[in-house]
Amino acid sequence: MGKNAIEPTREEDYSEWYQQVIKAADLAENSPVRGCMVIKPWGYAIWEKIRNYLDKRIKETGHQNLYFPLFVPVSYLEKEAKHVEGFAKECAVVTHHRLEEKDGKLLPASPLEEPLVIRPTSEAIIGEAFSRSVSSFRDLPLLTNQWANIVRWEMRTRLFLRTTEFLWQEGHTVHATAEEASEESLRMLEVYRELVEDVMMMPAILGEKSESERFPGAKHTYCFEVMMQDRKALQGGTSHDLGQNFSKAFNIRFNNQDGELEYAHTTSWGVTTRLIGSLIMVHGDDDGLRLPPRIAPHQVVIVPVVPREDKKEEVYAYIDLLKKELEQQSFCGEKIEVHVDSRDMRGGEKWWDWIKKGVPLTVEVGPRDVENGALVFARRDDSTHKKEKMKRNEFVQKVSETLLEMQRNYFEEAKRYKEEHTRDDIDTFEELKAFFAPKNEKKPEIHGGFVRAKWCEDPKTEAMFDDLKVAIRCIPFEQRGNVGRCILTGKEATKDVVIAKSY
Amino acid sequence: MGKNAIEPTREEDYSEWYQQVIKAADLAENSPVRGCMVIKPWGYAIWEKIRNYLDKRIKETGHQNLYFPLFVPVSYLEKEAKHVEGFAKECAVVTHHRLEEKDGKLLPASPLEEPLVIRPTSEAIIGEAFSRSVSSFRDLPLLTNQWANIVRWEMRTRLFLRTTEFLWQEGHTVHATAEEASEESLRMLEVYRELVEDVMMMPAILGEKSESERFPGAKHTYCFEVMMQDRKALQGGTSHDLGQNFSKAFNIRFNNQDGELEYAHTTSWGVTTRLIGSLIMVHGDDDGLRLPPRIAPHQVVIVPVVPREDKKEEVYAYIDLLKKELEQQSFCGEKIEVHVDSRDMRGGEKWWDWIKKGVPLTVEVGPRDVENGALVFARRDDSTHKKEKMKRNEFVQKVSETLLEMQRNYFEEAKRYKEEHTRDDIDTFEELKAFFAPKNEKKPEIHGGFVRAKWCEDPKTEAMFDDLKVAIRCIPFEQRGNVGRCILTGKEATKDVVIAKSY
Repeated sequence: MGKNAIEPTREEDYSEWYQQVIKAADLAENSPVRGCMVIKPWGYAIWEKIRNYLDKRIKETGHQNLYFPLFVPVSYLEKEAKHVEGFAKECAVVTHHRLEEKDGKLLPASPLEEPLVIRPTSEAIIGEAFSRSVSSFRDLPLLTNQWANIVRWEMRTRLFLRTTEFLWQEGHTVHATAEEASEESLRMLEVYRELVEDVMMMPAILGEKSESERFPGAKHTYCFEVMMQDRKALQGGTSHDLGQNFSKAFNIRFNNQDGELEYAHTTSWGVTTRLIGSLIMVHGDDDGLRLPPRIAPHQVVIVPVVPREDKKEEVYAYIDLLKKELEQQSFCGEKIEVHVDSRDMRGGEKWWDWIKKGVPLTVEVGPRDVENGALVFARRDDSTHKKEKMKRNEFVQKVSETLLEMQRNYFEEAKRYKEEHTRDDIDTFEELKAFFAPKNEKKPEIHGGFVRAKWCEDPKTEAMFDDLKVAIRCIPFEQRGNVGRCILTGKEATKDVVIAKSY
Repeated sequence: MGKNAIEPTREEDYSEWYQQVIKAADLAENSPVRGCMVIKPWGYAIWEKIRNYLDKRIKETGHQNLYFPLFVPVSYLEKEAKHVEGFAKECAVVTHHRLEEKDGKLLPASPLEEPLVIRPTSEAIIGEAFSRSVSSFRDLPLLTNQWANIVRWEMRTRLFLRTTEFLWQEGHTVHATAEEASEESLRMLEVYRELVEDVMMMPAILGEKSESERFPGAKHTYCFEVMMQDRKALQGGTSHDLGQNFSKAFNIRFNNQDGELEYAHTTSWGVTTRLIGSLIMVHGDDDGLRLPPRIAPHQVVIVPVVPREDKKEEVYAYIDLLKKELEQQSFCGEKIEVHVDSRDMRGGEKWWDWIKKGVPLTVEVGPRDVENGALVFARRDDSTHKKEKMKRNEFVQKVSETLLEMQRNYFEEAKRYKEEHTRDDIDTFEELKAFFAPKNEKKPEIHGGFVRAKWCEDPKTEAMFDDLKVAIRCIPFEQRGNVGRCILTGKEATKDVVIAKSY
C-alpha cells in the first residue's frame, strides 16, 4: 500500500488526523467567529440523517415538536440553584438591542432592562412555559421536543466536539409520578442507543453518571459512552430524570385525580452535532471518513469515466438506468440513495474524493463497462480500496446484502477495538495509574483505554481520579454483581464503574 | 346558525379575532421574553409541513443545506453600507460571555473584545465564508440554503407576523454572471409561488419591490403579496438579486475561464414563520383556522364516540380499520394522514377542537356506525359544519377527491375575495385617498383593499403614500402595457403598481 490520503495518520498524531479528516471530507470549518463552526453540506447531510431518524423515533414514542425562545432571562436561570451554577460561566449575554454610530464606530446602544442569556439549554425557559400550561392530571404526560441551536461559551473549541454554538435536539417532558419520569428518561436513552448502535454502528456503554458528573439540577443523569480510536471516551448523549427539582423551581403543579395540588416530575434529554465528531473518531481510517451505510447521505456514488466526448451519451444513459435499478432496491426499510458525480474533474480525483467522504460503495462506469453490461466498484470497508469488476445485474441484486454486511462490519470492528482496550482485571490504584500512563513519551495521548473496576460510591473519593486525568464515565447498567475492592480506597465494594479519559 | 367559536368575529374586530384564532387553535403563545413566541405543537406541525415541502423543492433545484454561525461580528455587518443601515436599529447585541454574582445579583461578566450581533439575516457572515470557498469558475454556481432562527428587535410584536425571534429558511447563492443570478432569484420566487399558491392555496401577486422597499443592499428585490381578509397586504417572502454589492463588500471573487479575477454575483431568498400568520388571515373564519388539506398536519381526524364502555373495543377496532383504509389512499402524491383522537374528553368538545384547529375532515364513529358500516363526517370548508352520514367504503373511495375539491375551494374563495377588493379604475390621488379612508369611524381598519394604478417611477414621489398609510407593495410582473397617468403626479406613466396598506 502506498501513501495514505490523510496526513498525519491516526498513529502519528490522532488529534491532527481528526482535523484533517474533517477537512478532507469537507464536513465543517472553523469560522472566524470565535469558537463557532460552519457546518458544510456533507457534514450537514449527515446531521440530517441523524435528525430524520431521531425525529421519527421521537414522534413514534409520542412526543410533539415545538419551539421555545432562544433567549432566557437571567432571573429564570437563577431559579434552580445548581442549574445556574453549572451554566453561569459559559453564557453568551445579550445586553443591548441596537447599534449606534459614535465617532465612526458602531457601538451597542439601548441597554436592556434585564440581560438575556442565549439558551445554554432550555430547562428554565421551558419550565416557565410548562408552569402555565400544566394544571390538571389530564394535561399529563406532556411530551415535547425541540430542534434548536445552543450556545455555551467554550474556551478551547474543536470542530463538532466542543463549539460555542452547536445544534441539538432537546426533549422535555412532564409526568404525574416519579415512576413515569424515570421510565421516560430510560425509554429515551434506549431510543438513543438504537440511533448510536443500530444506525451509526458505534458500540455504546449505557449507564448512569456519578453525582459529580450529573447534569446541573438532575436527580439522575443517564448516558452512553463510546470509545474513540485513541481509546478515550466520548459521551454521546444524556437523558435526565429531573425529579421535582425543576417543577419546584418553576412551580409546575397539577391537580391530581383526588383534586390535590402536586408538583410534577420532569425529564430532559438531548443529543448534539457532537455525534458527528464521534462518528469520525470511531469509524474513520487513514484515508478519511468511513460512513456506515445507514448514516451515509448516499449509499452509492457513481463516477462516470468518459475518455472520449462521443462516448459520453451512452455512458450517462447506462448510469441513468443503473441508478434507477439501484433506487428500486431497499436497505433497512429505506430506498438506496444514489448520487451520480458529473462534476468537471478528473475521474481519479473524484474517486478519492468519495473515499475521503466515506461513501460506502463507489462505482465507476466507462465505455467498456457499457459494452460488457458491467461496472467496477470498491467498498469503503476494504482498506485496500480494491476495485472489483462485476456484472451490473449481479451488483444490483447484491447491493442490499453488501450494504448490510458493511453496516455489520463497522460495528464488529469498533466493538473489537473497544473490547481489546477495555480491562476488567485492574484492582488497585497503582495498576490504574500505570494503565493510564503514556506508553511513549512522544505520544502522551496513547494510553490503556477503558477500565471496569469497583468503586465504593463515596463522592468524596472521586477527586482522586483527577490526578490521572481520568473520570468515572458511568456506572454501567450491566453490573457483574460480585463483591470486590474499591479501586480508590480498597474498601469492600459491589458497584462496577467505567473509568476512562474523555473528550 | 348559532354563536361562533371565535369571539370577536372578523367583522367585529379583525385584529383581536386573529389573536383568538391562534389561541383557539393552540398555535402559539406570547412568551414573557420580550417579543418572542412559543410555537406550540399544532403551529409547529404546520411549519414542518411548510419546511418539508420547501426543503424538498430547494434540494430538487440543486441547492445544498448547510449551517452558518448565529453570531455576526459588528465589523462584518459594517462592510455593506446599506445593509448595516437597514439592520443596525434592530440588532440584539451580545457583549459578555459570562455571568458573575455581585451583591447577590447575577451580572454580565467578561466583556467581548468585539460585540457580536445575533443574525438579523446572514448575508454578512455567509459573504465572509464564501470569499474563502470561492476561487474558480469551477466552484460556481454555489447553491446553498440554511434553516435557522433569526432575531430582529421589534418594538411592536404580533404572533407570527412580527416577533423578535422567528424561524426561516435563507438561500444564498453565488454565480459567475449577472444573468445567472437574475435567473436564480426569479426561479426561487417561482418555488415560493408554488408553495404559496399550490400548497397553501393563497393567491399571490408576484412582482418587484420599488427602490425604497428593497432589501438593504439588493439590486432587485422580488416578492409576492397576499391579501388578508382585512384587505391589507402581507409580504409572504422575498428573493433578492444582490448583484455584485455583497461580492464587492466581502471580496467574493473567482478566476474566470480566461484566468481573469472577477467579482461574483450573489442572490439570497427567504420565507419565514410569518407564512403561518398569513395562512390564518387568508383562510380563517369565525369558527377558527381553516387549513387547506396539503398544509394540514392531519387531513382526517377521527373522533370515537363511546357511550358505553363495553362498546369501546368494537368502535376502536372499526376506527383502526378505517384509518388503515384511508392511509392507503393518496392525495397530491402523498399519503393521507389520519389522527385518532383518543383523549379522555367529551366527544363534542373534541369535535369543536378540531374545527377550531382547521382540520379538513372530521369524522365521528359510534357503535351505530359500526353496525351500519358507516360514519359521520363534516367538511371544514362548509361553514355550517353539517354532519353527513356516509357508508365507510364510499367515504374512503371519495376521500382524495373530497380533499382535492376542498383544496381548490379555499383558493377560489380567497381569489374571489382578492378580486372583489382590488380596483383597477382609480386614477387620481383624491380617489385613492377616498378608497383608503375608513368606511366607518368605529372600524378605522376597514378600507378599500388593493389598487392597481400607474406610477411614474420617480422614487422621490413615493413619500406621498405615507400620509395615506399605504405603500407600493410591488411592481407586478403582470403589466397591462397601456399608457396612463401617474396616480401621484398625473404625469404620463406606463408602469402598473399595486398599492395597499400592509402588515
